[in-house]
Amino acid sequence: MDYPILENINSPKDVKELDEKQLDPLCGEIRQKLIETVSENGGHLASNLGTVELTVALHRCFNSPDDKIIWDVSHQAYTHKLLTGRYQSFDTLRTEGGLSGFTRPDESRHDISYEGHAGTSVSRASGIALANRLKGSKAYSIAVLGDGSFGNGLVYEAMNTAGSNGGRLIIVLNDNEMSISENVGAMARYLAVVRAKPEYYRFKARTEKALNRIPLVGVHLSNGLFKLKTFLKNLIYRSSFFEDLGFRYIGPIDGHDISTLCEAMNSAKMVGKPVVIHVNTVKGKGLDYAENSPENFHGVSEFDIDTGKTKSSGENYSSQFGKALTEFADKDSRICAVTAAMAKGTGLEGFFEKFPQRAFDVGIAEEHGVVLSSGLSIGGMVPVFAVYSTFLQRAADQIIHDGALQRKKLILAIDRAGFVGEDGETHQGLFDVPILQSVPNTTVYSPASYKELRKALYNAIYKDDNLVAVRYPRGSMPENGDLLSEGNDFEVIGDEDADASIVTYGRLFYEALKAKEVLNEKGISVKIIKLFKIIPLPKGAADAALHCGFVSFFEEGMKTGGAGEAFAEELLSAGFNGRYVHAGIDREFVSHAPISSLMKKYGLDGESMADTVIKGVNDEG
Amino acid sequence: MDYPILENINSPKDVKELDEKQLDPLCGEIRQKLIETVSENGGHLASNLGTVELTVALHRCFNSPDDKIIWDVSHQAYTHKLLTGRYQSFDTLRTEGGLSGFTRPDESRHDISYEGHAGTSVSRASGIALANRLKGSKAYSIAVLGDGSFGNGLVYEAMNTAGSNGGRLIIVLNDNEMSISENVGAMARYLAVVRAKPEYYRFKARTEKALNRIPLVGVHLSNGLFKLKTFLKNLIYRSSFFEDLGFRYIGPIDGHDISTLCEAMNSAKMVGKPVVIHVNTVKGKGLDYAENSPENFHGVSEFDIDTGKTKSSGENYSSQFGKALTEFADKDSRICAVTAAMAKGTGLEGFFEKFPQRAFDVGIAEEHGVVLSSGLSIGGMVPVFAVYSTFLQRAADQIIHDGALQRKKLILAIDRAGFVGEDGETHQGLFDVPILQSVPNTTVYSPASYKELRKALYNAIYKDDNLVAVRYPRGSMPENGDLLSEGNDFEVIGDEDADASIVTYGRLFYEALKAKEVLNEKGISVKIIKLFKIIPLPKGAADAALHCGFVSFFEEGMKTGGAGEAFAEELLSAGFNGRYVHAGIDREFVSHAPISSLMKKYGLDGESMADTVIKGVNDEG
Repeated sequence: MDYPILENINSPKDVKELDEKQLDPLCGEIRQKLIETVSENGGHLASNLGTVELTVALHRCFNSPDDKIIWDVSHQAYTHKLLTGRYQSFDTLRTEGGLSGFTRPDESRHDISYEGHAGTSVSRASGIALANRLKGSKAYSIAVLGDGSFGNGLVYEAMNTAGSNGGRLIIVLNDNEMSISENVGAMARYLAVVRAKPEYYRFKARTEKALNRIPLVGVHLSNGLFKLKTFLKNLIYRSSFFEDLGFRYIGPIDGHDISTLCEAMNSAKMVGKPVVIHVNTVKGKGLDYAENSPENFHGVSEFDIDTGKTKSSGENYSSQFGKALTEFADKDSRICAVTAAMAKGTGLEGFFEKFPQRAFDVGIAEEHGVVLSSGLSIGGMVPVFAVYSTFLQRAADQIIHDGALQRKKLILAIDRAGFVGEDGETHQGLFDVPILQSVPNTTVYSPASYKELRKALYNAIYKDDNLVAVRYPRGSMPENGDLLSEGNDFEVIGDEDADASIVTYGRLFYEALKAKEVLNEKGISVKIIKLFKIIPLPKGAADAALHCGFVSFFEEGMKTGGAGEAFAEELLSAGFNGRYVHAGIDREFVSHAPISSLMKKYGLDGESMADTVIKGVNDEG
Repeated sequence: MDYPILENINSPKDVKELDEKQLDPLCGEIRQKLIETVSENGGHLASNLGTVELTVALHRCFNSPDDKIIWDVSHQAYTHKLLTGRYQSFDTLRTEGGLSGFTRPDESRHDISYEGHAGTSVSRASGIALANRLKGSKAYSIAVLGDGSFGNGLVYEAMNTAGSNGGRLIIVLNDNEMSISENVGAMARYLAVVRAKPEYYRFKARTEKALNRIPLVGVHLSNGLFKLKTFLKNLIYRSSFFEDLGFRYIGPIDGHDISTLCEAMNSAKMVGKPVVIHVNTVKGKGLDYAENSPENFHGVSEFDIDTGKTKSSGENYSSQFGKALTEFADKDSRICAVTAAMAKGTGLEGFFEKFPQRAFDVGIAEEHGVVLSSGLSIGGMVPVFAVYSTFLQRAADQIIHDGALQRKKLILAIDRAGFVGEDGETHQGLFDVPILQSVPNTTVYSPASYKELRKALYNAIYKDDNLVAVRYPRGSMPENGDLLSEGNDFEVIGDEDADASIVTYGRLFYEALKAKEVLNEKGISVKIIKLFKIIPLPKGAADAALHCGFVSFFEEGMKTGGAGEAFAEELLSAGFNGRYVHAGIDREFVSHAPISSLMKKYGLDGESMADTVIKGVNDEG
């Protein structure tokens, strides 16, 4: 493919220097590049196709990085990467050592922050705007967020004070749900144009001033009230929320029309107080199958450009979870499923279809997901909140205060626990065990197989009390995985009398089996202590390692605060006096790379495990 | 004092059977009882004085506990306790073994949930309403929350779906800020009366239906737009937010007029969809000094009823923090202070007064507090977010994703870390160490003395990078506390060659000194390893204990995931083969009791420490 314009863009300065006539062709090239790269490397497609013109407009109207653009979640920042000196390396997107799929300040000075969780942008941009004001800087701070993020409480908290705090803050609300209903579209767009003109503000300020002096007496309440409301909804309703929070409002704007976008942005710069620019975009714009089903082209693996078809991923832990829960729910009308905008990702689509009355999507609102579940539980239901490990971090207090403290059944199905691979730092599921570790009234299972996943879910529903979490990784179980363990709280596999032991849980069990094979071949006897229940540690698990001369604990998560530390303390308290090695992630964020590569890097694959044991046994002797 | 009506109220049934004429005298008695008890025991005063009539009305109009009342934060539930069978035991309020200052289901079946953190009520009540609908129950679910909680994102997340989810959900917004501005007060109240009548809904539904058929063409835009907006703001604006979220709106109602309240509640019950009742109350109602300065009578210690004067609490860790930060800020214009509605509690009042431009109160919004701070940091400032340990739990993900991940200076001043005493389970600061333990790029100090607190703050501002937390307890340092340590990352006190060691941090250091004295008197040699920096553990600290036969670690926090586990693993990895005991809180919630009593209960006072060492040394021998 040829990219005659794009290949000459090395910085935002080059974008500004383009003739207006070159902008549409540039956007075409960008779309082509996005589709080409994502079809090869996987990534976020629909959101990026929807923000091409918006990004071009931002870089024409603002001076990055003096003006700071904060991309909410930053899964829509590919065009921004292409326009800020990363066109040449764009083919490395989401590959190990290559460009991240999200913004990273260590990748470019135009990336202001590390972003990957929803709803942070307004708060962060507001802080930057306040800092600018304190420094006497005239630079702008711009938050770009989608309407999905807009349902997150953090945005609301930020809007609540950002408007009145002031500063040169501009919020671009990227509305790709077409939430402006059809029947008012024409009038709304007309108003948008009116509002986008600088004159509007002067006019409005004048008018408001004048109106404030007119007494309200004499307005007819009787026939006015509801007519007014309807009128309002159609004309100015959508701005009132923002304006009352202290923002000026511009919009809705056609987010695929660069000149209108620029007009709006330049107007916003003149306002002198925080502004919301409401932009309508089409997710997946320019690629028919992505436009038609943007939800399927939000985050994708490699796909065929012509047909849009991705390789079928087959069964995985998520789909197995969804099936198991649906089966349980078929026989037990108390079971409810809760998700925070991840029904598809967590394998709950079937449940939502079959039991719509008992299925609740709360939007990107994990805190609410947990507390709503606690309410369902108080009401006698058995709520199962399915959530990615990384996003569960959002609900740490709710897990403590609204989960465990209530002493009622509440089940967390923690998906993507462990390495997630290409999504990198912001998305790895490495903190859920440390967060759950200290919570009272809590049981955590870490199944290795699909069979164990089902069993953990069964235990959670029918055997354990209070807060119960079932955590399982992204991806698929190895073949025959179901045959290799029994789903007991813990199991000892191998030579009971071995002097060396490998302790682990979750899918690392399969790596441990590989290590055992390698070690046995070398004549080293080893036992595997496989944990199924990891919090609290099952009685007897530490005892099984107590008389070993060498114990190694392998954990696909953070070491400090992890299960391996709790195991170490149990050993120590029980009088263990052998050697102990704990492998895991040691206080660092884990960058994007294939899961298998990360396993190797952190010493968690079978071969590394075997090496650790060999070294340990030799040191001991 | 006499309580002729109140003393005969044993359940909500008795409240319902009272003659209307008895209600005002009842409320008078309740107020008297509240003032009497809180002046003796301390507790929340202003919020409870403000909700007397509201609570009486709720128990007359609803059937608790079938209808479930969820009190947000539940610091306003004293009247509820008095009316639900707890009058006789009310004198035990907030005393060890006595009534909690918050709702507790294990105290009464009328307490539906354990509450202490803000903004959960709508979400929880919504879950209960959904469960009721699934069960076919006609019971109501009622959330009562203050306007302070209303700024919390969790409420917004819940409102976002609760309205459309439906169910018999009633939200009582207890607005005690008088946020209805004076100039629209008369008209707003008139409308409130109109709206509170059941007829209104029938009328409104009819009107809306009719209006929906009328085309909008012909309305004059030119002169209509802004006049409409002003008109709207005065008449129906304040309802539009709720109505658009799918709620019916009733209000604002006089929250001290029981018959109006009941009319509104009975109307709400007839609506058949989620309703918001907007109630105006006066915080501190009925007690002049509390009405005049409700902020000073929110949470109080014992006070003199006649004058309202409390004992001066003198210097404490919070006031010392505030002073130190203000002094640093005086010389360094980059320093900003951020608080989530706790400027007074965290000792920042002086800072806010002196540096209003650099002081930011974000409301009850801890997530936003952290992310805003990250923005200030990106903008070149040095933000210090002062927050209670228990409320910091709300920002666990922001600590990871928006604090540590950004690799910029961000300082957390964690107040009330450790036992908080009378506020009990929901407020103990026991989870901050486990939560911070696994976070990369993070340094945590736990000063024992005021001098160390200042030094930790200095280190955080000028020496350490990235995320730095300084955690300190509620209350005051012992006399001469400043003289007893040097503020090194760790220190060894006592006999270097002792076979027994006590490892600890924070204010427990003073208990360790007492233990050492007891032990020395008994001829037992011991060394104290005092940690100042607790995350990551200072190099050499574990080595100092390595050759001891007995090591005891004392921690005023959760054991699992705590610093003592990390210390155990360091010891074990370094080849330690003595005995190890770790004292702390072992996976349980800690009820309300004086701090000194809790120290004893969990084996953390000097005497218990000495006993632990004696036992350990004997077992060893």
